[in-house]
Amino acid sequence: MPPANDARWLAAAAALAERARPVASPNPGVGALILRDGRVVGRGWTEAGGRPHAEAVALAEAGDEARGATLYVTLEPCAHVSARGPACADLIVAAEVARVVIGMADPDPRTCGKGAARLREAGIAVTETHSSAAAMGLEGHACALSLGRPHVTLKLALSLDGCIATAQGESRWITGEAARAHCHRERARADAILVGGTTLRTDNPRLDVRLPGLEDRSPSRWALTSGEVPAGWQKLASPADIPAMDGVRYLFVEGGAATAASFLRADLVDRLLIYRAPILIGGGLPAIADIGLGSLAHAHGRWTFAGSRQLGSDRLEVYARARNEGI
Amino acid sequence: MPPANDARWLAAAAALAERARPVASPNPGVGALILRDGRVVGRGWTEAGGRPHAEAVALAEAGDEARGATLYVTLEPCAHVSARGPACADLIVAAEVARVVIGMADPDPRTCGKGAARLREAGIAVTETHSSAAAMGLEGHACALSLGRPHVTLKLALSLDGCIATAQGESRWITGEAARAHCHRERARADAILVGGTTLRTDNPRLDVRLPGLEDRSPSRWALTSGEVPAGWQKLASPADIPAMDGVRYLFVEGGAATAASFLRADLVDRLLIYRAPILIGGGLPAIADIGLGSLAHAHGRWTFAGSRQLGSDRLEVYARARNEGI
Repeated sequence: MPPANDARWLAAAAALAERARPVASPNPGVGALILRDGRVVGRGWTEAGGRPHAEAVALAEAGDEARGATLYVTLEPCAHVSARGPACADLIVAAEVARVVIGMADPDPRTCGKGAARLREAGIAVTETHSSAAAMGLEGHACALSLGRPHVTLKLALSLDGCIATAQGESRWITGEAARAHCHRERARADAILVGGTTLRTDNPRLDVRLPGLEDRSPSRWALTSGEVPAGWQKLASPADIPAMDGVRYLFVEGGAATAASFLRADLVDRLLIYRAPILIGGGLPAIADIGLGSLAHAHGRWTFAGSRQLGSDRLEVYARARNEGI
Repeated sequence: MPPANDARWLAAAAALAERARPVASPNPGVGALILRDGRVVGRGWTEAGGRPHAEAVALAEAGDEARGATLYVTLEPCAHVSARGPACADLIVAAEVARVVIGMADPDPRTCGKGAARLREAGIAVTETHSSAAAMGLEGHACALSLGRPHVTLKLALSLDGCIATAQGESRWITGEAARAHCHRERARADAILVGGTTLRTDNPRLDVRLPGLEDRSPSRWALTSGEVPAGWQKLASPADIPAMDGVRYLFVEGGAATAASFLRADLVDRLLIYRAPILIGGGLPAIADIGLGSLAHAHGRWTFAGSRQLGSDRLEVYARARNEGI
């Protein structure tokens, strides 16, 4: 099978992995798909709490049809037996799968390479790739292992000239309904949402997911403050404390300008989600306060364009922090 | 021939019209193309100074092959004989063209409809459409006739957070080489470039076209100031004075923040050309000063997304002023 098809099926497995986000946290949300004679015979994604794993679910669905089939999985299958279930590599071997295509090696040094090795020892053909679609759904896992902290998305809802409100502070609404609904869906993909203390006091935001069927996916609510927080809220004294956010793999930061700046100054933003409304405000409130930028040279090379799309009359722009580690 | 093909050939004629911009000014830059049995037998665009017209050039190239062919032209052919040349409608009739497809009716009330009528009287099949590609190349003409002023593009080179410089005023460079080259090409499409008095005094910009082969296309240079201007510069006291800019059909405004705001406040911007660098500045100098926006409601509905593209690591975003007149 040509590699182009491998990439396509891995992308399909990555789409399945989305269903595990964030309910699998703190375990990685993996997607798996079993293909036999051009037909999908099994599909799976990591279940709530992390078990069963995606491969186990897909193999159970495929049953006998897994024999001689190809398994596409976004993350290298685990090779360790735990009290919570068998090793996926052993399950795959037992099912007599002919070929396994892996979207991303497990960055966990305890398992990296061991899953693939176990499969090869059993005579299974293993293709290890680096699928960007697969990696995109495993950013929280990669951040936890390589940086020891949650993956951080900074969301900004801006005018074309970079304002989040008029000079008088009017900010509802910069963006339209479609962009706001998309933002609620992004909230549902996070484990925790954070705003600044000032935003909490002045806007008293609900920060919940107001999408039909996803109401129970509202993440935990955090405020960046050293002061008191209302019931139902947790507080973070400093962006530097995010490694201690228990069980949080995906953190969604929603502003305001000082909070955005404090995360950027600490280089603790991995992804920018910019909802850009087709309006000019002129002399309005800027989106990001001082981030201690000494010179323009230091601003360049930090962000990579990762896509844009139209949402009603607004544009969504996504940028990823350019890191050597490839996160 | 199906309308889809008409749109395609009109877009090709519009691409030819680009060659007339801005050398045809103050006459409209028109493009024409003659198709015979699926083969292009004649091409033309308005020559420097406005004559000969695009249709005359295309007909001359086609010669006898124009007989029975289809002529695509971005603007309705003229029906008036002038001292500078014959009416294009008469030339088309004499060449025995079988069909004429018109991209845009001439907004000039003196000629609107007369060209098409003259062709029909002679038994030529005429299709009048509104081609957005054709209209885009005739914006200066449409503005001159319907608003009595030049078409105004406001160019902004911005960070993701809408800054044009760091807090210390460092602005070179926000955008990269590809974006700057594109901007020089846009300068070459304008009749005049304007900056604010402060920009003139502090940056002393050359504002010329530094692209090989286009050096002689550098537009006239204007400063928005009531003070003195250096030799080689002209001055404009207020945006409201642009109708008096002699022979200027396309005005390219390059900032800074106060100049941008003064044109926006007067609602004298038709097109936004935003070069967006993938950088965050945070607490930098905003792109647009106060434009007297009372409420967010007044900001909405004014700008329509008209396309975006990648230029090196920067994004170009184009927005058009949403007007009922369709300019």
